[in-house]
Amino acid sequence: MKLQRPRGTEDIYYENAKELTALELILRNIASQYNFHEIRTPIFEGKDLFVRSIGTETDIVSKEMFELLDKKEREFVLRPEGTVPTVRSIIENKLYGKYELPLKLFYIGSMFRYERPQHGRLRQFNQFGTEVVGVKSYLLDVEVILLGYNLLKLIGLEQVTLKLNCLTDSDSRPKYIAALKEFLSNEKLCDDCLTRIVNNPLRVLDCKIDHDKFILAPKIHEYLSPEEATYFNNIQNVLNKLAIPFELDHKLVRGLDYYTSLVFEMTTLDEEGKELTLLGGGRYDHLINEFDQQLNYPAVGFAMGLERILLTLAKNGIKLATEDELDVYVIVLSEHARYFASSLLLLLRSNGLCADTDYLNRGVKAQFKSSERLKAKNVIIIGDEELKKNVVKIKNQATGKEHEVKFEKIINVLMKGKA
Amino acid sequence: MKLQRPRGTEDIYYENAKELTALELILRNIASQYNFHEIRTPIFEGKDLFVRSIGTETDIVSKEMFELLDKKEREFVLRPEGTVPTVRSIIENKLYGKYELPLKLFYIGSMFRYERPQHGRLRQFNQFGTEVVGVKSYLLDVEVILLGYNLLKLIGLEQVTLKLNCLTDSDSRPKYIAALKEFLSNEKLCDDCLTRIVNNPLRVLDCKIDHDKFILAPKIHEYLSPEEATYFNNIQNVLNKLAIPFELDHKLVRGLDYYTSLVFEMTTLDEEGKELTLLGGGRYDHLINEFDQQLNYPAVGFAMGLERILLTLAKNGIKLATEDELDVYVIVLSEHARYFASSLLLLLRSNGLCADTDYLNRGVKAQFKSSERLKAKNVIIIGDEELKKNVVKIKNQATGKEHEVKFEKIINVLMKGKA
Repeated sequence: MKLQRPRGTEDIYYENAKELTALELILRNIASQYNFHEIRTPIFEGKDLFVRSIGTETDIVSKEMFELLDKKEREFVLRPEGTVPTVRSIIENKLYGKYELPLKLFYIGSMFRYERPQHGRLRQFNQFGTEVVGVKSYLLDVEVILLGYNLLKLIGLEQVTLKLNCLTDSDSRPKYIAALKEFLSNEKLCDDCLTRIVNNPLRVLDCKIDHDKFILAPKIHEYLSPEEATYFNNIQNVLNKLAIPFELDHKLVRGLDYYTSLVFEMTTLDEEGKELTLLGGGRYDHLINEFDQQLNYPAVGFAMGLERILLTLAKNGIKLATEDELDVYVIVLSEHARYFASSLLLLLRSNGLCADTDYLNRGVKAQFKSSERLKAKNVIIIGDEELKKNVVKIKNQATGKEHEVKFEKIINVLMKGKA
Repeated sequence: MKLQRPRGTEDIYYENAKELTALELILRNIASQYNFHEIRTPIFEGKDLFVRSIGTETDIVSKEMFELLDKKEREFVLRPEGTVPTVRSIIENKLYGKYELPLKLFYIGSMFRYERPQHGRLRQFNQFGTEVVGVKSYLLDVEVILLGYNLLKLIGLEQVTLKLNCLTDSDSRPKYIAALKEFLSNEKLCDDCLTRIVNNPLRVLDCKIDHDKFILAPKIHEYLSPEEATYFNNIQNVLNKLAIPFELDHKLVRGLDYYTSLVFEMTTLDEEGKELTLLGGGRYDHLINEFDQQLNYPAVGFAMGLERILLTLAKNGIKLATEDELDVYVIVLSEHARYFASSLLLLLRSNGLCADTDYLNRGVKAQFKSSERLKAKNVIIIGDEELKKNVVKIKNQATGKEHEVKFEKIINVLMKGKA
């Protein structure tokens, strides 16, 4: 039997798992500084949920959902993104009545897309996302942008470009769409775009194939209502005052149907100068109302793919996790000493020290080699002679110094070295 | 449209998410003290993988797997447990050749069982598990037991019972099975047990319905080969020397087919005195060999359900996470002050302080109320008057003391309070 993980998935272990865990810890810490609270929704949801909210014309819904077989109940899918499940949970659990508004939520977890593997994209990937729900204020749009921008800086990504656009949600939206269709009718477009023109012409601008043809397309932010224009200006003003650089990008529409006002992305350049999107989001003021007409809770948020972040960090030579190393490796010279080592390990670990020993009954030389491979800061050596004298030898691997330490002083000596 | 999460799943948010996250952090820390390394495998795997390894007669495989629809490729399931994917990953990625043996691995993640919801059991639940692979030593069995036992103590669960049993893997296994069948033939058993007698009689002992009828059943640890008996005795001896109390339980067989030698559980009592299993595991020396006959890597591990741990902690009044609270809530008295608040928040947060403000343009009273609900330790008050003087008012909510602080001293003052 050939053992293989499913196509488009990854096993993450040792250094890579440690790096991902370190990133998650940083994300939780910064989210908490911004007073965001974690939410964890199930890995799978009813299929309807996404069909209704993301839009059937998006790639996600039309071809990228992983479906779950369930004999008796309705159709399920592995969640393709985090915003819709969060909104579902807010409504179902009435979070708006239980906690201070705006709800400031974040999630970290796996998402799933049944994409063609030749894209080089993963079928299971990890996202961090935020959703701020219940209050419409340009200060919250800024807050969400700042959270994203500063966390990228915090983890060491200096070359980040913030791009903004604003989608009109007013009466002038049909006017803009008409102008856009007029413009597009003169361009030669790919097959996907020809479908999109009919169902959701905005998304044509998002096309990766035809992207370069739209530089002269009509600009949606010129079609904003006066209120929308003021709102968008306010966001830009605060960003200017806070000295956060940004660019306006009229082709930025994001791949999802539910955005209504501000949309934004943060990008960086890869080694070949190609632009990589690190995170993207925007304001979606109608989504909750579409699910439940009694509720009027505007919302803004973003999502960020962790694999791309980790890849970008790696390419920049940045490590988030400390290197694996042991505080102590216990070298055992006799069978008696082995018993003693067990209780010594227990003592070391219960004092918060990372410690290990040999389980292979190997000679001293092999054990010393292990201690080096495991990057032990200290080696403790125990044999029958030491046991008789109630001492161990402790060798500091950095200084090479070795001295005898009484049993009852072991923790003291090691903790001093650690402090 | 009615919004509902799938049956048997949970939304975890705010305090509960914080508690789960705190538990995960503790688990990662203690695992690291024991020199265990994290592994993350995909949420779904090929169906074959589990059918072959867990055994078709186990409930997991026969009726509890969530299947994934995939038009083109082989059948997938949401992973029902963590050991088999870990083993698959070890073999596929040749981890035994890349890292120091024994491989000491742990995982934290969601598992899935398509159980009848009336069981009160979850269809998506979280597990922590360890697998130590590549070396057979009773000291490793003890190490794995100690990790489990001490982590339960560490999180505050004092009333933990450790139960041990040893399954024979030798020539005497058929003898034991014959004796067991003979004994069972005189008992009136449930339908499930009648099927199990034929396919896997050991698992009859695991039956929750007939459990009490097996007190006088033949005891498997009396059928151990001399080597197996010595091995099992060695484990008990070390546990005795380390003053870890345990009980022998001859009915303990665990619900999976792959265990071959030591099996163990740690249990506690609920309020009604009913026994709850907190974690369980054992040695599985053949599983890797069954997947790849070139590889002989004995293994031992355990798995622990996080929901049950959190429930038990809650019933014991134990909280792992610190209470949600802010270092600073910024109260804004004017529109100008609001702009200033944005940059002040940025400054506070970039200094690691948890801070928030009002986004609703509310009056002072409402803002003070928010600061109390959000449990702010300090309140900063800014109005036009303060802006003119380049100061803010800082009020310590615990002492009630309020004083004016110059802009450039804000961080100093607050950090002093934090230290």
